[in-house]
Amino acid sequence: MTEGALPTQPIVLQVNEQAVYVDTGDPLPETSDAVIPIEIVEPLDEDGNPAQDIRAPRSIRIRAAVNPWMHVRPMGEDMVASQLVLPAGHVLRPVDLGVIAASGNTSITVAVQPKVAVIPTGSELVPIGDPLSPGEIIEFNSLILAAQVQEWGGYATRLAIVPDDLHQIQTAVSKAAKSHDLVLVSAGSSAGAEDFTAQVIESLGEVFVHGVAVRPGHPVILGKIEVVNEGDQTRLSRSVPVIGIPGYPVSAALTGEIFVAPLISRWLGRPSKSPEKVTATLTRKITSPPGDDDYVRVALGRVGDRLLAAPLARGAGVISSLARADGLALLPRGSQGKPAGAEIEVSLYRSLEEINRTIFATGSHDVTLDIMGQFLYQSGRRLAIASVGSIGGLLALKRKEAHLAGSHLLDPQTGEYNIADIQKYLPGVAVRVVTLVGRVQGLLLQKGNPKGIRNLADLTKPGVTFINRQRGSGTRVLLDYQLAKQGISSHDIHGYQNQEYTHLTVGAAIASGRVDCGIGIAAVTQSLDLEFIPLFEERYDLIIPQEHVSGQLLAPLVDLLENKDFKHMVAGLPGNDVSEMGKVVAELH
Amino acid sequence: MTEGALPTQPIVLQVNEQAVYVDTGDPLPETSDAVIPIEIVEPLDEDGNPAQDIRAPRSIRIRAAVNPWMHVRPMGEDMVASQLVLPAGHVLRPVDLGVIAASGNTSITVAVQPKVAVIPTGSELVPIGDPLSPGEIIEFNSLILAAQVQEWGGYATRLAIVPDDLHQIQTAVSKAAKSHDLVLVSAGSSAGAEDFTAQVIESLGEVFVHGVAVRPGHPVILGKIEVVNEGDQTRLSRSVPVIGIPGYPVSAALTGEIFVAPLISRWLGRPSKSPEKVTATLTRKITSPPGDDDYVRVALGRVGDRLLAAPLARGAGVISSLARADGLALLPRGSQGKPAGAEIEVSLYRSLEEINRTIFATGSHDVTLDIMGQFLYQSGRRLAIASVGSIGGLLALKRKEAHLAGSHLLDPQTGEYNIADIQKYLPGVAVRVVTLVGRVQGLLLQKGNPKGIRNLADLTKPGVTFINRQRGSGTRVLLDYQLAKQGISSHDIHGYQNQEYTHLTVGAAIASGRVDCGIGIAAVTQSLDLEFIPLFEERYDLIIPQEHVSGQLLAPLVDLLENKDFKHMVAGLPGNDVSEMGKVVAELH
Repeated sequence: MTEGALPTQPIVLQVNEQAVYVDTGDPLPETSDAVIPIEIVEPLDEDGNPAQDIRAPRSIRIRAAVNPWMHVRPMGEDMVASQLVLPAGHVLRPVDLGVIAASGNTSITVAVQPKVAVIPTGSELVPIGDPLSPGEIIEFNSLILAAQVQEWGGYATRLAIVPDDLHQIQTAVSKAAKSHDLVLVSAGSSAGAEDFTAQVIESLGEVFVHGVAVRPGHPVILGKIEVVNEGDQTRLSRSVPVIGIPGYPVSAALTGEIFVAPLISRWLGRPSKSPEKVTATLTRKITSPPGDDDYVRVALGRVGDRLLAAPLARGAGVISSLARADGLALLPRGSQGKPAGAEIEVSLYRSLEEINRTIFATGSHDVTLDIMGQFLYQSGRRLAIASVGSIGGLLALKRKEAHLAGSHLLDPQTGEYNIADIQKYLPGVAVRVVTLVGRVQGLLLQKGNPKGIRNLADLTKPGVTFINRQRGSGTRVLLDYQLAKQGISSHDIHGYQNQEYTHLTVGAAIASGRVDCGIGIAAVTQSLDLEFIPLFEERYDLIIPQEHVSGQLLAPLVDLLENKDFKHMVAGLPGNDVSEMGKVVAELH
Repeated sequence: MTEGALPTQPIVLQVNEQAVYVDTGDPLPETSDAVIPIEIVEPLDEDGNPAQDIRAPRSIRIRAAVNPWMHVRPMGEDMVASQLVLPAGHVLRPVDLGVIAASGNTSITVAVQPKVAVIPTGSELVPIGDPLSPGEIIEFNSLILAAQVQEWGGYATRLAIVPDDLHQIQTAVSKAAKSHDLVLVSAGSSAGAEDFTAQVIESLGEVFVHGVAVRPGHPVILGKIEVVNEGDQTRLSRSVPVIGIPGYPVSAALTGEIFVAPLISRWLGRPSKSPEKVTATLTRKITSPPGDDDYVRVALGRVGDRLLAAPLARGAGVISSLARADGLALLPRGSQGKPAGAEIEVSLYRSLEEINRTIFATGSHDVTLDIMGQFLYQSGRRLAIASVGSIGGLLALKRKEAHLAGSHLLDPQTGEYNIADIQKYLPGVAVRVVTLVGRVQGLLLQKGNPKGIRNLADLTKPGVTFINRQRGSGTRVLLDYQLAKQGISSHDIHGYQNQEYTHLTVGAAIASGRVDCGIGIAAVTQSLDLEFIPLFEERYDLIIPQEHVSGQLLAPLVDLLENKDFKHMVAGLPGNDVSEMGKVVAELH
């Protein structure tokens, strides 16, 4: 049709007879075997002149021939029938839906979401939001378990709390099993509650396992019960697995991860997903019981060229360790733990990318760090805070285990802060000392000051109980300095030997009525509703090794010290003075 | 109370008067200041004898003193008020819900999911599942976009297809904007459709950008329109961003990733998440237009100690590249591409863990590989198949770019398969040659064989069109060998110069009626509903470098060659012979 067309010898084709307009991507009309690009077409009107309305020409003129199948994309280029586009068991992503539709499928077979019932049991449990009486505990394990089930692809139902009563638990489990594929019985944290679960499963079916050599998570119960579905005319029974979940939150969450997640994956027909793993250096010794697989939650961060794993508080009830954990390390039974500095394998809860954006702050705690964490998060940095006291922080910097340390160590000889201790604990380490905040230390007291405490000397009065800060903390140094100056003997202070690790925990001990008094910064009084008697002003600095100061990781933190909104928020807390924030006190080399 | 208790000098405490039973984790009663572990308590009955019912003793006997606050966990140990538990902008995980409840919060403030309308436009579009006429296209871009929005945390509404009509699109956009926070106008793939979007936004508001220097995704339109909310009495208008999404699927998906995702993140108040990145070695040259940021989808796999990035087919319409992509590489404008062997940075779509479980198969294609992919997926391996022909596969093994190659290269001298070519193309490379499947090659014909083709000689008849396989493919070698043997000149075969890269695409070309005939394996006829005239039997082997044969990665593949279910399924395809599957033909060192 186009054969012989040349620039000097054009050929004219009648539109809709010899040629048809098509859009890119359109299937080729059956009468055609090539496409002419629109760029080389000259549209003509009915008189053979260049067309005014180029969208509806009568004919077109071309000045080059096109070969058969030119500018035609073979239909098979993309996907053809019988080709494996997505394997069974694959979890569909947005683009996969497009691929399925494009390959001509209007429906596909997918795995049914398993229905999972979560039954909280325990007479001491109270629903979230209900008033708490002494001895009662907020029930939230079922919330964690249900959300885990949803995340792993199941469909979870949280049922009402059942008290520690064999018959009531029996009824609840039996009823739930009729309409679910899996029943999780979340026990209260009392040993009695867990006993009921085993009895209930035994009475309705079979207990396979009661107790596993896993820490935390010992008292797990694995079993099954036989049920007939509601409304099922055949009366054929089916087995429903029942898992007794330990009552402590950290045990409960781990039980979900190691027992419930693989079961759901199996039901969904997808290969068990092994989490991404990294090798990291342990910052502290871990002691493991010899007979247990020991799961340890760790915070992860990259300091210099090492990826560090800092073990989090181990208690099965320390729920905050769940939120703080960046990964989970397994120390297999028999290993009996690992020393500090050992390499351990960690399964990641967060992406390595996110972990690489983590700033490890150590040393003394100040509420300003929490505010800093909030601001930094918006700049794409996570601030992980380990509160170990001012001297502990300097030692951590020496071991290269943190990017910076907060410190407020008074040198009694000179009245200056931090420099003397840095020279003592960090000889030869190049650091920048930059002021974060000026603050006021004083007596933290219960609302109304019921014991009428006015000054340090009053701490020795009979009936006054005190809570101290740990050795190595700047506040302890300050207190001891002032006691010596005023000639007060620490032996006369009731509670001087008891210690807490942060201002906030000291404040909490006083707010709860456990003790009458402590020493701390004014900034904590606001949120805890305490009284405060100011005693001394002091300076809280950040000690930043020079190798990190100008790095990309800390850049947003360095910038933050000039940020007006940040300063304003810090200044809003009682006793805080931001006039010297960002001032470089010393560059030590 | 317990002071002075000794093994020889026990002290007895009255239950509920001097001592109270508590469970682990219970708050301490106000009258107590220490906990005695149950293990060292001797329960007594009313007569002072060991109690029968240990759950309800009258009194207890202890033989050791406990110090104040012994076995008491300070309340502040876990979390205290005012401490930053989770930063604002954090995406809540299951454990976080527990932490929030545990810290006494019954509700928290969360970001509202932005409501996003997706409007497909284009007169050529047909909803998924509706019958297709020539010139019509299945509309699935809105499905991808809506699923992307949901995945990124928005709430998506897919609206009905609007034909290419200015007024109708205007009405649809204007109406959607009233009840949504963002409107995505997905254009058909014709240039006209995109023009309408720009006109509509211009008429209702403002176009900021029309066209970006990004490939694929050039014709993106960014703008906003002013609307008054339905039922809003104040009649104050608000700006609603409108994004014109290009019509090609790959462009549409990429536009979502680079323009829509950051906007949703911003609205959700969370820091833009940068994907995990890896550095990989490019297996093929990439040519980029000088003026564009060039986004290239790649398949990733670790072969030996190198992480390899194989660029996927580039066409904006090659939708399967979306599903196959393991990552996205950005070649910034001005770079003009990268040579093979260059290191490139790739943003991951899958976890590195999953990529490390990927087996790269290359060489000749056989449907058995697709079945293999399905079985391997269940064993935790992904099989990525690059079909480059038998000789191409050997060359890829030489470049260490794959874990194995499929090959069926007949040596005309000996009648043996593969060995001669391995010695020619892979000198000095130690490989195992193992048989996968015996198969039948023959003429692939349209249903009913309308041209009455019976043998190779008929390919030279007038009016018969043929589609060839590419040079270097085993099938091409076989054809040329047989043509020579039968004295048929390839010049007499109409279409001998046109080539496809796989059996499946040859089959598709015939099924679509584009050509009459091709050479291929019997196994493809079933799914494509073709006729088949058997010509020759042949052997298809896997060539596996010895360094991979006994590795952990390939272990499930090696096992699979002995798997009954796998053999059974492969044997079920026409022409397949599994009697020699798994037979080691040669160990070459």
